[in-house]
Amino acid sequence: MRLLVINPNISRDVTRLIEAEARRSTRPGTQLTLATAPFGVAYIETRAEAQIGGYAAMQVAAERHVGHDAVVVAAFGDPGLTALREILPIPVVGMTEAALVSACQVGSRFSVIAISQRIQAWYREAIAAHGFADRLASIRALDEPLAHIGRVQEDQGERLVALAERAVQDDGADVLILAGAPLAGLARSVADRLPVPALDGVTCALHQAQTLVDMAVTPPSGGSFAPPPEKGCRGLPEALAGLVGRRIAEAPTSVD
Amino acid sequence: MRLLVINPNISRDVTRLIEAEARRSTRPGTQLTLATAPFGVAYIETRAEAQIGGYAAMQVAAERHVGHDAVVVAAFGDPGLTALREILPIPVVGMTEAALVSACQVGSRFSVIAISQRIQAWYREAIAAHGFADRLASIRALDEPLAHIGRVQEDQGERLVALAERAVQDDGADVLILAGAPLAGLARSVADRLPVPALDGVTCALHQAQTLVDMAVTPPSGGSFAPPPEKGCRGLPEALAGLVGRRIAEAPTSVD
Amino acid sequence: MRLLVINPNISRDVTRLIEAEARRSTRPGTQLTLATAPFGVAYIETRAEAQIGGYAAMQVAAERHVGHDAVVVAAFGDPGLTALREILPIPVVGMTEAALVSACQVGSRFSVIAISQRIQAWYREAIAAHGFADRLASIRALDEPLAHIGRVQEDQGERLVALAERAVQDDGADVLILAGAPLAGLARSVADRLPVPALDGVTCALHQAQTLVDMAVTPPSGGSFAPPPEKGCRGLPEALAGLVGRRIAEAPTSVD
Amino acid sequence: MRLLVINPNISRDVTRLIEAEARRSTRPGTQLTLATAPFGVAYIETRAEAQIGGYAAMQVAAERHVGHDAVVVAAFGDPGLTALREILPIPVVGMTEAALVSACQVGSRFSVIAISQRIQAWYREAIAAHGFADRLASIRALDEPLAHIGRVQEDQGERLVALAERAVQDDGADVLILAGAPLAGLARSVADRLPVPALDGVTCALHQAQTLVDMAVTPPSGGSFAPPPEKGCRGLPEALAGLVGRRIAEAPTSVD
Amino acid sequence: MRLLVINPNISRDVTRLIEAEARRSTRPGTQLTLATAPFGVAYIETRAEAQIGGYAAMQVAAERHVGHDAVVVAAFGDPGLTALREILPIPVVGMTEAALVSACQVGSRFSVIAISQRIQAWYREAIAAHGFADRLASIRALDEPLAHIGRVQEDQGERLVALAERAVQDDGADVLILAGAPLAGLARSVADRLPVPALDGVTCALHQAQTLVDMAVTPPSGGSFAPPPEKGCRGLPEALAGLVGRRIAEAPTSVD
Amino acid sequence: MRLLVINPNISRDVTRLIEAEARRSTRPGTQLTLATAPFGVAYIETRAEAQIGGYAAMQVAAERHVGHDAVVVAAFGDPGLTALREILPIPVVGMTEAALVSACQVGSRFSVIAISQRIQAWYREAIAAHGFADRLASIRALDEPLAHIGRVQEDQGERLVALAERAVQDDGADVLILAGAPLAGLARSVADRLPVPALDGVTCALHQAQTLVDMAVTPPSGGSFAPPPEKGCRGLPEALAGLVGRRIAEAPTSVD
Repeated sequence: MRLLVINPNISRDVTRLIEAEARRSTRPGTQLTLATAPFGVAYIETRAEAQIGGYAAMQVAAERHVGHDAVVVAAFGDPGLTALREILPIPVVGMTEAALVSACQVGSRFSVIAISQRIQAWYREAIAAHGFADRLASIRALDEPLAHIGRVQEDQGERLVALAERAVQDDGADVLILAGAPLAGLARSVADRLPVPALDGVTCALHQAQTLVDMAVTPPSGGSFAPPPEKGCRGLPEALAGLVGRRIAEAPTSVD
Repeated sequence: MRLLVINPNISRDVTRLIEAEARRSTRPGTQLTLATAPFGVAYIETRAEAQIGGYAAMQVAAERHVGHDAVVVAAFGDPGLTALREILPIPVVGMTEAALVSACQVGSRFSVIAISQRIQAWYREAIAAHGFADRLASIRALDEPLAHIGRVQEDQGERLVALAERAVQDDGADVLILAGAPLAGLARSVADRLPVPALDGVTCALHQAQTLVDMAVTPPSGGSFAPPPEKGCRGLPEALAGLVGRRIAEAPTSVD
Repeated sequence: MRLLVINPNISRDVTRLIEAEARRSTRPGTQLTLATAPFGVAYIETRAEAQIGGYAAMQVAAERHVGHDAVVVAAFGDPGLTALREILPIPVVGMTEAALVSACQVGSRFSVIAISQRIQAWYREAIAAHGFADRLASIRALDEPLAHIGRVQEDQGERLVALAERAVQDDGADVLILAGAPLAGLARSVADRLPVPALDGVTCALHQAQTLVDMAVTPPSGGSFAPPPEKGCRGLPEALAGLVGRRIAEAPTSVD
Repeated sequence: MRLLVINPNISRDVTRLIEAEARRSTRPGTQLTLATAPFGVAYIETRAEAQIGGYAAMQVAAERHVGHDAVVVAAFGDPGLTALREILPIPVVGMTEAALVSACQVGSRFSVIAISQRIQAWYREAIAAHGFADRLASIRALDEPLAHIGRVQEDQGERLVALAERAVQDDGADVLILAGAPLAGLARSVADRLPVPALDGVTCALHQAQTLVDMAVTPPSGGSFAPPPEKGCRGLPEALAGLVGRRIAEAPTSVD
Repeated sequence: MRLLVINPNISRDVTRLIEAEARRSTRPGTQLTLATAPFGVAYIETRAEAQIGGYAAMQVAAERHVGHDAVVVAAFGDPGLTALREILPIPVVGMTEAALVSACQVGSRFSVIAISQRIQAWYREAIAAHGFADRLASIRALDEPLAHIGRVQEDQGERLVALAERAVQDDGADVLILAGAPLAGLARSVADRLPVPALDGVTCALHQAQTLVDMAVTPPSGGSFAPPPEKGCRGLPEALAGLVGRRIAEAPTSVD
Repeated sequence: MRLLVINPNISRDVTRLIEAEARRSTRPGTQLTLATAPFGVAYIETRAEAQIGGYAAMQVAAERHVGHDAVVVAAFGDPGLTALREILPIPVVGMTEAALVSACQVGSRFSVIAISQRIQAWYREAIAAHGFADRLASIRALDEPLAHIGRVQEDQGERLVALAERAVQDDGADVLILAGAPLAGLARSVADRLPVPALDGVTCALHQAQTLVDMAVTPPSGGSFAPPPEKGCRGLPEALAGLVGRRIAEAPTSVD
């Protein structure tokens, strides 16, 4: 099978981290296409950045999904996830959602370890939107500016482990989610130092994507994830326009 | 005061409906700027269309907010609302949120009357994301294709009133929200035929926007709505780039 | 327009604080009538005191609402609010509810700063009853007896600011509600010392009341806020009896 | 032991129904004092009427509780319940709460059978305030005006049974609560016609009251049900003033 | 009346604690049968142990309930409670549920004081399953291994009291539940040292059981607690088989 | 890898259905051991039957898990799931939980199609216990007695499809879960007749189990799923005793 993995941020360093971990999570015969957002920000910490990253992910997916069996959105918070699910005829998996559903099968309550204080509000809202707020034991986050988003594991590894230990001891976490693409691979490298299972979003997402392809789930023709009703659109990149509507000439009465 | 009212859809017919109702809701001295999304779809029914409309609203707001005292996002579901609140130094009001907070002050439970079956899932999720799911008595929607989005009130007025009456009788609604910019003004024109108050999103939004300007709320320097931390960005329209990050030259190590 | 502002407590000092702040929140042409409860307690901290204050507010409103366009209940916790909404033909606004709906339009999570430890349980229950428990980041309260309820701002201002700062730093508040009529005006005087917007209940209530009057919401003839079914009553003040029932002579079979 | 049973409504017919059912629920040695509200309405259907009834119950309790071991508030919706719990040194039991906690021990989900359409909103909110909304299968109610509140069982018995049967078949109720003091005794008389247990609020309340007295629970000196902090009060009946505050002379600075 | 009290653990020391406290909670004429699980663990701290204890309780109840008027499951967490309610024709009361419903009638929020750190997750899930999560202020637990489960009160009494005090001061508890059969009787012995009422699960359960018997609740023939549909079973103890199904000969087609 | 698939019911017909579907869901190199409960009932519809099935699953797992890489509990409702997760050193997957987490990745709201009216309460509670109640659109169930549990698909296929269609049209389901081991394989055979994806619990469980094995999640030494603290036990099958405690000789003081 062939999977399209989209980094909704512009950082190719992070795309490389994602790719390295993704390759460890593929089965024989699974091929990967990695794509980096052509526009947006270095990494997503806020609702505004997620709104941009979600639209970038839509554009990338629209242009490149043909020939793939599933799409993975590889930024914590899953920007654009449900939007993509509506318009693509193949399964779409989010890093956060994949980590959450894996965590639920390993323990009752999970904590999220994050790379910045600011990122917590967006994570909390993303987890709640997925419906898992009741199982969230805590979010614990680094509280210093990051010198380099592609080297946060090397620079801050010890601090991240310390946060994880407190989440288990003080917050009652049964599972840890080391969150955000910049931490891709950390769960694996520190697993033996932690008292509970630590999950990596990229790993979870790749496994869930392969599982959904294996299950050969039929695309919906009804329900709220059927393809959107065709309607007029304007100014969208051609591939995206093809998925969400019929192109409108420059000045029709109805939309002008 | 001066308010920027953004239609996140491309339909100028709908912008005109919004404008007409908005002008009825302004106080002496309030001036309006109306703006229509330069790209996107004719009207938002789905999560995908909302993701596009939210990004379009960000672009419009970034380019045009200077000189205004508040921004109104004029599509039900409030695409881009919290994103705009993070990046703009002035209050941002959403049509849905404004209708919800008004409804809460008029009754205990509300029903939403909507223009299409498909739109219900997105509305339900938007209401839940705002935290008002427990007060939602029901969503009732038209079940026929719309011939013309700018004339839905004339074409479907009787059916909409009938749905509203059932929401009160059968679902226990104390208040009705006639939802979606294409219904702007309908609440006013049918108010005397309905047994409970009917709210118009545009009207509510304009009033809440003027109220927030009157209150002169200080923009935050802390909390999760402080301006996003400055970070590298690429490929964003200049005005938006100025609000979310520092522009990155074409190929720096960290994002390439 | 003309607004009736009811202090459900007996403290005229507090009524004066409310009035001063209320006058700052009125638009040209808005006239205020201030009323102090004729019976009850000095300020409401408990469920019992709220039950008394709510009934006092009903009596005052019944006697004095004629000639007004809306009523404001000016005690945190909104004693009697939904009761008044059922029996009066004009909008009724509560200080707490108005602050909550304003807070929701400024940030995602709010903290409440309160004047006593004891008051927290009542506030928490009032916020939950309004349906906003999920957005409550914390309640933080003074922990010393108040020397004089009319001078708490002067006596305890620095401590209140310190509590507010901790709510932002430690509890994740995006907005602060400085709660209780005795703190009327404090949000304005300390706004520039706080990292996030601080809301004043009186200010919010006055603005929401003017907004509801502007919107000319139709009084309900159906739903659960229609006028209560007429039924026998006894021993109620005449004005209140006129709103809730038909007066019963001394010993009819059915109620004797 | 001696129990004070308060009807927060003015209908002595209903007090007699309550008394008859209450006497069937007492154990040897339990003595009852029945009291009818001296002011208020014929029966409580709305939030406004509950606000009045709650205050009436406070007055009655303040004046008559001495010499009793517990108090029962005998109107569905429990007007004034938590207020009474704060100010009285003895247990206070509510008809609704007692029925809810009994229902929980008999099944998973319950339905409430009620005497009027209008009463449903108030019941729903009362059940939610007690924290039992998730276990509420449905509320089903008569939809005709009641000719005589003291004879609703005779007049409407068959209809009430039919509503109960539908709640089991269609709504998934494991238990039925025949709600409201005017239905006191009905559960007993129709029990053998219903497929699931039917609970009577008066019966449940009397049993829970006797149980709490048996358990000799210590009155709190801390927590949010400790006696309210003493504070100035005015215009309250003497007994009530003695429970909530220290009486203030006519015109002290602080409250004038 | 005659009550069957089942200790779902194998510790007879604990059965004796339960019995002593149970006898203090019976009224004249109430007779007790105490039963200890014939298999299982010394005391239940985990989901696994509760699964075993629940099945043991089913066996004991099936074998011994005849001739009794109600059954009490005397381990915190109520192992097997709803299962027993389905198969027995008499009321079944759980220690936890009885403590929770009693707590609700005494205060708004309760804390649970527990005997081990590990036991907290199971308690938290049991309380949530009963639907009382929103009223749980906190769980506080001893953090040292227990030398002897039958002497934990003597060994750890002071520490338990200290935990209780912190729950009131820091967590906002209005009521305390001293949880677990090994603490049976502690609430009584330390009541006068605590600022809020402290409840004992055994006491609450015995009182609620007697109350349910007094109320003579009809066993259901419908709803989800009607006797399970008869179906094939195998390998169950005879008494239990008689309650859940019809015995199947060794190798019928359908189950082989 | 080698997976142990446990049917917690005694019906070997159903085990064969499970096995057939399970074999379709394994990847090359995955080997299956199927096990049928040695005691219990023909199929689980109630809380009581689930309590028995959960204990049977514990015994089977204890005796047979060695040499396997993961365990699958193959009955809807997941009897014994969290208990097994505590005591086994390998991943444990439940049919329901696996279907729920798969459903969440395919749509927003799901409906469950079930084989009997009675089973609905147990399913609803199981789904709520897993934390997915908010995403449950409906449960729809057959309402006739089942002639033969092993042939329900052939006998009732059309009716089940009709229920599924109504769940999409009337209840807003985006995904369907055809629930219960007796329906294993039905989702596959009717997929092309349904407007939204239909999931099979056995299929989902096998895929999730293989995924968890692939991810090589570390067993916890901390948190609430660490092995239970060793404690005395009695009367348990040897293998189970080895997992939950240290065996106690016949009559030690502490447990006698």
